[in-house]
Amino acid sequence: MENFSQWFHDILEKAEIIDSRYPIKGMSVWLPKGFKIRKYFLEELGKLMDQDHDEVLFPLLIPENELAKEAIHVKGFEEEVYWVTHGGVKELNEKLAIRPTSETAIYPMFSLWIRSHIDLPKKVYQSVNTMRYETKHTRPLIRVREITTFTESHTVHETYEEAIKQVENGIDIYKKIFNLLAIPYTIVSRPSWDKFPGADYTFAFDSLIKDGKTLQIATVHNLGDTFAKTFDIKYEDSNGNHKHPYQTCYGLSDRVIASLIAIHGDDKGLVLPPLVAPVQITIIPIIFKDKSDEVLSKANEIKNTLENAGFRVNIDDRGIRPGKKYHENELNGIPLRIDLGPRDLKNNKIDIIRRDTAEKKEFSLDGDIVEYINNYLSEITNNLKQKAWNYMNEHIIELNDLSKIEEIVLNGNIASVKWCGNDDCGKGIEEKTNLDILGNLSETNGECIHCGKSAKYNCLISKTY
Amino acid sequence: MENFSQWFHDILEKAEIIDSRYPIKGMSVWLPKGFKIRKYFLEELGKLMDQDHDEVLFPLLIPENELAKEAIHVKGFEEEVYWVTHGGVKELNEKLAIRPTSETAIYPMFSLWIRSHIDLPKKVYQSVNTMRYETKHTRPLIRVREITTFTESHTVHETYEEAIKQVENGIDIYKKIFNLLAIPYTIVSRPSWDKFPGADYTFAFDSLIKDGKTLQIATVHNLGDTFAKTFDIKYEDSNGNHKHPYQTCYGLSDRVIASLIAIHGDDKGLVLPPLVAPVQITIIPIIFKDKSDEVLSKANEIKNTLENAGFRVNIDDRGIRPGKKYHENELNGIPLRIDLGPRDLKNNKIDIIRRDTAEKKEFSLDGDIVEYINNYLSEITNNLKQKAWNYMNEHIIELNDLSKIEEIVLNGNIASVKWCGNDDCGKGIEEKTNLDILGNLSETNGECIHCGKSAKYNCLISKTY
Repeated sequence: MENFSQWFHDILEKAEIIDSRYPIKGMSVWLPKGFKIRKYFLEELGKLMDQDHDEVLFPLLIPENELAKEAIHVKGFEEEVYWVTHGGVKELNEKLAIRPTSETAIYPMFSLWIRSHIDLPKKVYQSVNTMRYETKHTRPLIRVREITTFTESHTVHETYEEAIKQVENGIDIYKKIFNLLAIPYTIVSRPSWDKFPGADYTFAFDSLIKDGKTLQIATVHNLGDTFAKTFDIKYEDSNGNHKHPYQTCYGLSDRVIASLIAIHGDDKGLVLPPLVAPVQITIIPIIFKDKSDEVLSKANEIKNTLENAGFRVNIDDRGIRPGKKYHENELNGIPLRIDLGPRDLKNNKIDIIRRDTAEKKEFSLDGDIVEYINNYLSEITNNLKQKAWNYMNEHIIELNDLSKIEEIVLNGNIASVKWCGNDDCGKGIEEKTNLDILGNLSETNGECIHCGKSAKYNCLISKTY
Repeated sequence: MENFSQWFHDILEKAEIIDSRYPIKGMSVWLPKGFKIRKYFLEELGKLMDQDHDEVLFPLLIPENELAKEAIHVKGFEEEVYWVTHGGVKELNEKLAIRPTSETAIYPMFSLWIRSHIDLPKKVYQSVNTMRYETKHTRPLIRVREITTFTESHTVHETYEEAIKQVENGIDIYKKIFNLLAIPYTIVSRPSWDKFPGADYTFAFDSLIKDGKTLQIATVHNLGDTFAKTFDIKYEDSNGNHKHPYQTCYGLSDRVIASLIAIHGDDKGLVLPPLVAPVQITIIPIIFKDKSDEVLSKANEIKNTLENAGFRVNIDDRGIRPGKKYHENELNGIPLRIDLGPRDLKNNKIDIIRRDTAEKKEFSLDGDIVEYINNYLSEITNNLKQKAWNYMNEHIIELNDLSKIEEIVLNGNIASVKWCGNDDCGKGIEEKTNLDILGNLSETNGECIHCGKSAKYNCLISKTY
């Protein structure tokens, strides 16, 4: 994969994930195969969210006066909002924003819904399309103008401590989904100039793409009582006092899918974690004239057994060369391939080939195929996870000399440096290196790499998307 | 239910389906309970669609020049389209329409995707939000400005005959989903002035609401080759000739949920078909001091048994009066209630109470509870279906005197009359009666109720939403 950018563009097209030829820049079509990956991802995310949140659905449009209420927030979005100004041939009385995110759609309703401490905590989420008028170069799934899949959570709590705890809960949920998808991540607290507009603080998950850039794949924000004050959200506590509650919000998007494609894929095509693979097992019957009925019948038997156990299985009996089938199944990232020919039938066995390592194993059909495949798919997920985490960990380089940082980062690494935590010093680093401070990974001591004063944080620096 | 309009407004609020206080007219919030009904509906619809269609997802916005390409089509929507004119503070070079429906978003891509007869038939669908700038009085779920749930299918075929057949397939799918939801319907071909803009012909499903008005809940269109010509969709047939293919499209929306709420509900609240009920069975433990552990333990045992069989079960052990629980569970339309007290425990039985008929039955816990509940839920669906179909059939009144039609229809009926099928005559009927021609139910002969010439169709007339 010499040129990641070209590889990513090609794989989306060849594996039929996204069609980016839609006649509006930055907006693309989800093709059937891509849509299925997205669907299985959202199903798993939904299972995690549903344990502790209610799913809701708010309108797409936000009145200008609601969007404008929270000054810091609106300033963060004013360059990026799409405005609806006309209904039919008539100009609207009030401009309507297409949601760039839904705080200002949801919180006016929270102010109606929340009356008493018994209404708290309140935890809701929704999966929606949002829009941002990106002026930078767009790229499918990574930098888009329509985010077709934004799963955003919004919670309300009696105390600031509960909000802090909820931020941790949000982080835990995202750790779980990224582990299921075998996506490695760093978690940092963003520097003040890069936190969510209106938040007290922001934690972010970033993944390292093979071109050496980091991609933000999820964020978790503690909003304090800023929005509660702006949107007049109040509750009566058990003593009859009226107070503003504390809020959090957190979200992730299409970029998760970009990340899993980019991280696991190789020169042959997609490598999909079994959880989101549209087809998990493809069976290729090797057919000769006299034995074709028996082979196909056995293939169908295996397919039925595996499907009844909940796997997604396909029999590839197209009348084309096996080599072409292998090639296509590799391109599509199908985790396991089963080869089945007349000789296998005679020996009551099959060959099973992994997409991730290309390893071939023989399996006797006397054994429990469901258990075997189940374990094998777990092994694949674990291998993908291990490999991806190793890659990322090897590419986080501790540095104590700022002069080397550009070279290190431009060679595909994330730099870990000691930093004083001072805004001016941080912006100085960004300016000097032309790189981005991702944020603080952990506390430390010693000397700031830039100003030399006493260091507070181990801080990650990278080239970001 | 003396005043349907008030009842419908109240039930959406009290049963927490929709919050219509969102600060834009015609746009509402799906609350957790309503969202679940919507979710289970979409899941069942998806199962039917997935058998023969690929799910895809197209962008929200459509460039003005694409929307304008098909002249008849755009004329049908020009009064209703929301226009995006600004990105951030900049005016866009080209206005973008928020999709009112997606023909003009999808068909430019079809023209890229379809090359040869081996690409056909192509059948895709998507579930998306769409917008229409309604100028009439809005009403949640029934007449809205954001349709949050529009499931639209688009198919492409080699021949016109195949397109005709696909229209029938679309109708069959909708019959199946409405049967699952116990929603009765009429299917008519819409008169020429009321067909989908650009279609050759339109079939529509209407349901009869208790206020006597009909509500269009699904439409199926044969588009002929009109859009194929406009959007330059061509395929090469097996002889190497380049031809325009034939298309169909069909869709349904939030109105299906409005319809099931309106048709099955009663003065006590929702009556939900088990398929979409967020909770299908609620267990109410009748707790006395000394026996509470045993009762709760039995309730949990029953809950686990039923949940493992795939039912959605709740134990209502809140510390409030049973009467209040009964009232709330009725309001929420939970199909079955199980009462379980110490005396039941002693006799190893439970009382099961149906929401739809309020009938109470005793069930011995020696029996197979899963089979029993399964059958009972089917019986409820069948009863709802029977009752609703009977109601509708009783309210379709055959008439051969136009002077009585207004009275009949305003008393809550659909009129069935003989009609010549002539446009001018039909519009004359609508003008004279101030009612709407739904369309043709079947062919007939005899005399047209209006012009007296020879009749061609049995035609339905109603007051429509």
